[in-house]
Amino acid sequence: MTNRRYTFLGVGGVGGYYGGLLAKAGLPVNFLARGDYAAIREHGLTVDSPRGGFHLPKVSVFASPADLPPADIVVVAIKSTENRALVSLLPTALAPNGVVLTLQNGLGPDDDAAAIVGADRVLAGLCFLCSNRIGPGHIQHLDYGAVTLGEYRADGSPGGETERLIAIANDFSKAGIEIRVAKDLRAARWSKLAWNVPFNGLSVVLDTTTDRIMADASSRSLAAQLMDEVAAAAAWEGKPIPREFLDRLLADTAVMKPYQTSMKLDFDQGRPMEVEAIFGNPFRAAQAAGVATPRLEAMYRLLSFLDHRRGAKLVVPSA
Amino acid sequence: MTNRRYTFLGVGGVGGYYGGLLAKAGLPVNFLARGDYAAIREHGLTVDSPRGGFHLPKVSVFASPADLPPADIVVVAIKSTENRALVSLLPTALAPNGVVLTLQNGLGPDDDAAAIVGADRVLAGLCFLCSNRIGPGHIQHLDYGAVTLGEYRADGSPGGETERLIAIANDFSKAGIEIRVAKDLRAARWSKLAWNVPFNGLSVVLDTTTDRIMADASSRSLAAQLMDEVAAAAAWEGKPIPREFLDRLLADTAVMKPYQTSMKLDFDQGRPMEVEAIFGNPFRAAQAAGVATPRLEAMYRLLSFLDHRRGAKLVVPSA
Repeated sequence: MTNRRYTFLGVGGVGGYYGGLLAKAGLPVNFLARGDYAAIREHGLTVDSPRGGFHLPKVSVFASPADLPPADIVVVAIKSTENRALVSLLPTALAPNGVVLTLQNGLGPDDDAAAIVGADRVLAGLCFLCSNRIGPGHIQHLDYGAVTLGEYRADGSPGGETERLIAIANDFSKAGIEIRVAKDLRAARWSKLAWNVPFNGLSVVLDTTTDRIMADASSRSLAAQLMDEVAAAAAWEGKPIPREFLDRLLADTAVMKPYQTSMKLDFDQGRPMEVEAIFGNPFRAAQAAGVATPRLEAMYRLLSFLDHRRGAKLVVPSA
Repeated sequence: MTNRRYTFLGVGGVGGYYGGLLAKAGLPVNFLARGDYAAIREHGLTVDSPRGGFHLPKVSVFASPADLPPADIVVVAIKSTENRALVSLLPTALAPNGVVLTLQNGLGPDDDAAAIVGADRVLAGLCFLCSNRIGPGHIQHLDYGAVTLGEYRADGSPGGETERLIAIANDFSKAGIEIRVAKDLRAARWSKLAWNVPFNGLSVVLDTTTDRIMADASSRSLAAQLMDEVAAAAAWEGKPIPREFLDRLLADTAVMKPYQTSMKLDFDQGRPMEVEAIFGNPFRAAQAAGVATPRLEAMYRLLSFLDHRRGAKLVVPSA
């Protein structure tokens, strides 16, 4: 099967970037856009990137789910804060044997898709990506871009390397996207959280960048402790994160160029933050397991307050 | 002895307010001012207050410690962040049998005075006060004003109600200041921290006021947990804080009018925050005792980062 049909739900920093790359590579890709539909239909999709930008003058874009052709792979490229839309979108968008590929952060966002289409029809990609929508159909890719693909399992057990997983990985690879395959998606999610919890959280609460978090002894120490709490919760689930991996994460973050985290960008632009996926769900998982994560919980409370207050501020519309 | 001579070190929100009230009541009060000396010498001291402001056209103010007449009571009314100045100030300012009265927040600020003049010559007052210096010799009293007085003991044991403590309490009372006498200063300090840790800390980190901290379930929950950690550390020292007292603190804070904490005012005005006295010392006391206070520690790290960063910002000069 070389003509797998993709539908991307969302044309923001994630969907516009990866969907654009797949379409550019000649794969059949449809997009569902909402506010941006008219602009994309007229002007196509533009991706700026230090690795070489591109412009697709004509992309297959739809405003209404009812108009979407059935897709073999429906890619969920909206924020998990908008997942309540999936209950109407997924059944409409999927071909009878189609699968869902979520490209979402944190713990548990694929549970929402699984509840709608069944756990055996869900895969996930963890995106190591710095990319933003800067206008309708206009994506600014800043850095990174690798995707870790894995099979979803409701009980968190390893889903292995299935044929369909390899097929999707090959499509992405053909499009120039760096792909890793994770036999254990849940373990990969915990490992990614080990970075996202400290650095997404502290960048928002302290209004700062990753380099400054690492440069100050106080914040660096708190970042390391948050990482340890995530690792403790993961270990209880049988997904231990090696000490060397955590140490390397910290060391790499200290020397990498100053980085605005996705949560910081959301916060600064008045968009909802993925507080539940990145903080609430890991905290509740740890709590249910009886693993103490008091600093993770404190960050969860601080970020929830900030996210609730956002409602009272100017909200900049997004894709 | 009805003519106890007071010297106030510092003419800010605390020193200007209490020293002004004592001077207005006719007690012999000298002030040591630094940058504000010339203005106070020329224009005197003005206190605005909803409870009735007043103006003292002539106050006894000095710019140099060497010029100070010996005092029976040297009142430390500078921030604990400036305590390194005490080593030169206290010996110069004190009469041979004089005592030191610290009016400072948090845990351990009187240790600094005790190290210089001896533990048996130190008393402390805990100020429940909302008052600011808004210009040289110009104090804006906003609310509250009670002082809890107690005898300092190096080992934290109760100092009881001594004659000199009662004498000072009487002077303050005569000046219209509401006075409580604490037989156990260390216990009183921990009780005050039960409010200061959550509300000073969260008001800075979340850039908000006490009413909003209490109105949001997430921040209210974190405030209560921080309070519990302070109480746990206090209990280990044999200074248990009754549950009903903590519950009452929370309930009162929820209904009291929106309050800018002293730490928030310091932060907003680019002044050093009393991070060590209010967070660092309680955290280290708990740590030494083996009491887990992870949320207190997290707040300590967050506030330390914010306080360190302040150095890079515009610093507004204070008294």
